[in-house]
Amino acid sequence: MIGVESDNDRTCPMVKKRIQTVGTLGELGMIQRLVRALPERADVVVGPGDDCAVVRPADDARYDYLLKSDPVIEGVHFTRSTPGAAVGHKALARVLSDIAAMGGEPLWALVNLVVPASTSVARVTGIYSGLSKLARHWRVAIVGGDVARGPCLEAHVFCVGRVPRGQAVLRGGARVGDYLFVTGTLGGSRHGKHLAFQPRLAEGRWLQSRRWATAMIDLSDGLATDLRHLIRQSRVGAELFLTSIPLASAIKKSASRQTVLRHAFCDGEDYELLFTVLPANAAKLIRAWRKTFKTPCAYIGRITDRRNVIECVDARGRKVRLKATGYEHFR
Amino acid sequence: MIGVESDNDRTCPMVKKRIQTVGTLGELGMIQRLVRALPERADVVVGPGDDCAVVRPADDARYDYLLKSDPVIEGVHFTRSTPGAAVGHKALARVLSDIAAMGGEPLWALVNLVVPASTSVARVTGIYSGLSKLARHWRVAIVGGDVARGPCLEAHVFCVGRVPRGQAVLRGGARVGDYLFVTGTLGGSRHGKHLAFQPRLAEGRWLQSRRWATAMIDLSDGLATDLRHLIRQSRVGAELFLTSIPLASAIKKSASRQTVLRHAFCDGEDYELLFTVLPANAAKLIRAWRKTFKTPCAYIGRITDRRNVIECVDARGRKVRLKATGYEHFR
Repeated sequence: MIGVESDNDRTCPMVKKRIQTVGTLGELGMIQRLVRALPERADVVVGPGDDCAVVRPADDARYDYLLKSDPVIEGVHFTRSTPGAAVGHKALARVLSDIAAMGGEPLWALVNLVVPASTSVARVTGIYSGLSKLARHWRVAIVGGDVARGPCLEAHVFCVGRVPRGQAVLRGGARVGDYLFVTGTLGGSRHGKHLAFQPRLAEGRWLQSRRWATAMIDLSDGLATDLRHLIRQSRVGAELFLTSIPLASAIKKSASRQTVLRHAFCDGEDYELLFTVLPANAAKLIRAWRKTFKTPCAYIGRITDRRNVIECVDARGRKVRLKATGYEHFR
Repeated sequence: MIGVESDNDRTCPMVKKRIQTVGTLGELGMIQRLVRALPERADVVVGPGDDCAVVRPADDARYDYLLKSDPVIEGVHFTRSTPGAAVGHKALARVLSDIAAMGGEPLWALVNLVVPASTSVARVTGIYSGLSKLARHWRVAIVGGDVARGPCLEAHVFCVGRVPRGQAVLRGGARVGDYLFVTGTLGGSRHGKHLAFQPRLAEGRWLQSRRWATAMIDLSDGLATDLRHLIRQSRVGAELFLTSIPLASAIKKSASRQTVLRHAFCDGEDYELLFTVLPANAAKLIRAWRKTFKTPCAYIGRITDRRNVIECVDARGRKVRLKATGYEHFR
């Protein structure tokens, strides 16, 4: 997808001479403007706006192909002190998470590095070792890329995956009554998970192969924002059971329940899968999941007909509406 | 390919504490170190080291797929005063030139933009208008990408193309005796061609479809460097006819013949096609080319058995050897 970094909107520089800047328009507004009139082709099944683009090389082909690119940038997605291997791991894991969210299998990747000349060789080889280790684990070939000079360290990863023809799990497939599930736990990104997470590729393919997920998205911008993407594209609403949200143990100890829930809803970079399942399949799914995966999978809500509305049900059964701007506006 | 920016080796910062940096190792050395142990797959026909990677999704598929990524970075590939549309044009044209050099047809592209928050919206939409215009011309769909905050403006373009199965024109196919041709004129990049060039896609596909090109590469790093790539991968040598090198009219007027030749040999970013042809096909090719294209095509040399050696033949028939470091070391 043409995506938006969750932390970009914080920047709001002075406006000089009334020139509209990316900072004032916001990245989301920028993207909406950019995707308006992009060149298309008949063999593009899904263009910008889902976790990956889906293309169909031939009508009789066994597979559709998934295309995805994402950057990691020093000062935005990692810091100067993040070990190189963690940078490389994260750079590839981010795009693999998007392939997972379509139910896909990753195949080939290209890597563009941007590197200041003063960067140590050890740091760059560290990035590649992190990339290569994760690539090898998922049988992804790194087939090319580029190394260019620039003012700060960046890795842009481009990945091609595949999924059986017509079987990509999109954001727009949720129907009223579907059950809402999430993998793993939420809110742990600030405690290091954003660097060390494992993309849920096995889980995503398993869900796709059984046709159990009616819609799916990976949690890169936080549950509040990503659920909103899913319901908007499915033209539905959602109800979340607050007591069922699986919270990362690292944050559970640290603060009030209100604060902890805010992390779970609003912190980006959990890289878990959020997906919907037909009510008739929900119990089967839970049983089969437990036999197959160690990763937790929690039933956290339901799809409703209140289009674009997310309601939260608290421990006493009271419903409160989640505001568009995120969990901090929710009382 | 995992490529190298032609202008990167100029940077040579102070070495502190004996830490080896990318600047001291050089980008080419860096890349050689990085590609040593990359994860592979059986369906990768050509990995890092050619104009594009070539992958074969299925043994019975009609097409192989070409994968390529390249960045353009402010201060390296364009300046603050370069119009947005020219930046977008160049960003896509660079990868299309590599697809052309494999004889391929481009299909889908993803674009990662890195943008300082102070960038004007008009500049970013300008980049997209340049990208979209060129994409539309070549029927390339822009299917996704990302917009992220960063310290300087960059556009990373990833492109997927295709070529009939087994028919990608590689750098390594030149044989002793083959004739060497180049499209267009050389040395014009510093006079604006590096921003406005048209990728030679029609010419590349035409050469591929007739099976006339035995080896091909696009001139991004200059004739001296790119011919060296071609002969190294073909395990041959080459002889260049100095009087036959087609020179850009913009540089012909401006300086001594020696200076002009240096531009033609060493300036990067001509984005013309350099290719080899069996002697038996050379005359046919020249006749057919003239009927088909307005783009010039010049016979500039021959492939020899003096492995890794480039010799230049001057107007009086004297042979002089082109040194590894480029034309300025050639007398």
